[in-house]
Amino acid sequence: METTTQPATPENTPYAPTDRTVPTRSRDRATYDRAEVHAILDATYVCHLGFVRDGAPVVLPTLYARVGERLYVHGSTGSRPLRMAGAAPEDDPGLPVCLTVTHVDGLVLARSAFHHSINYRSVMVHGIARQVTDPDEKSTALDAFVDHVVPGRSADSRRADAKELAATAVLSLDLEEVSAKMRTGGPNDEPEDMDLPYWSGVVPLRKGYDPVIPSADLAPGIEVPDYLTRL
Amino acid sequence: METTTQPATPENTPYAPTDRTVPTRSRDRATYDRAEVHAILDATYVCHLGFVRDGAPVVLPTLYARVGERLYVHGSTGSRPLRMAGAAPEDDPGLPVCLTVTHVDGLVLARSAFHHSINYRSVMVHGIARQVTDPDEKSTALDAFVDHVVPGRSADSRRADAKELAATAVLSLDLEEVSAKMRTGGPNDEPEDMDLPYWSGVVPLRKGYDPVIPSADLAPGIEVPDYLTRL
Repeated sequence: METTTQPATPENTPYAPTDRTVPTRSRDRATYDRAEVHAILDATYVCHLGFVRDGAPVVLPTLYARVGERLYVHGSTGSRPLRMAGAAPEDDPGLPVCLTVTHVDGLVLARSAFHHSINYRSVMVHGIARQVTDPDEKSTALDAFVDHVVPGRSADSRRADAKELAATAVLSLDLEEVSAKMRTGGPNDEPEDMDLPYWSGVVPLRKGYDPVIPSADLAPGIEVPDYLTRL
Repeated sequence: METTTQPATPENTPYAPTDRTVPTRSRDRATYDRAEVHAILDATYVCHLGFVRDGAPVVLPTLYARVGERLYVHGSTGSRPLRMAGAAPEDDPGLPVCLTVTHVDGLVLARSAFHHSINYRSVMVHGIARQVTDPDEKSTALDAFVDHVVPGRSADSRRADAKELAATAVLSLDLEEVSAKMRTGGPNDEPEDMDLPYWSGVVPLRKGYDPVIPSADLAPGIEVPDYLTRL
């Protein structure tokens, strides 16, 4: 197992491209910029984790959080990827995974059906996921999950006790083989289509939250905390 | 290659569970209900497509659309999963894939960090993806992509010509081995935590679109179409 110690990599050092992080198409949309990758990863909290089981692919949506150059991925001790990663650290061969995070930012409506597109930002991480067994690192990861979703929330909730920590499985995945891909801007219509009588442009997705719904059994006098009104 | 003809399966016939569509945990959150699966698939347009390359998993975000009991997945002829699926129908062994669609509906804030959760709806489809080579089926798929994102749009744009059809690769994936999973409702705190002084409840995600951004070179007099104001 690796330790929690990580080298501090400057944000201006890009990730090194590899055979599998150089796309076969739309290379101009790919970037290895560390700060851009971090920003995409930090702007949401649900990833799609791919792994191979019995020779076939499986893609699971799950919670993740970034701490420096390491991602933590949430599971339960009964979940398939974690059981596959091995129960004990000394038995842990690691699980080859591909973790992908995608933001859909807008719909791109061109005059031609062919040039319709989606504005998006995505990050793909290839690597070996390993179980986190160190209790301190696990505790760090659980705080990160909660604060990644709602910044400031972990300090305003009851922290996990030893039993809960044991019941939560966490995988770690280091950010080494990483790429981002994105599309921005309006449609790229063919010159001969510019005078067609079809509306063209971008429909941006609205991001945000609706008003909170307090638990029916919430004790009286507990106000909506500032970190929620700031969301 | 399979044909475009599909048996009409009644919406009230659930998908048959298989070893890999029965979850190892939270089985009460799984469903095989055909109408629920269709509703989850029809409510968005970006999926995460998992496949195996050189023994390792790859998860790609891409566009999809449902037509009856078949999904179409968008690619380009240069993209990796499509090249792997074979260039010609007679050479096409099919590509084992796992296609996952996830909606994040809300953040579930419990009094305890451990019981924090996400309300979500997801569908996972296992199967063999095949290249669509029939021009009529490909044309149907392209219309479906556009109308799946913006209902009514394919009739209000220039349809793909033969060259564009040839440049667009489409995979088909039949809905046979399918499951849905979802979480709804508020937090499930431990009884002994109910009096803790922490706010608890649900923060629903806001879904929708911001005002459209017309192309800078949009011809004068083209109004925003009704199907966009209805979005």
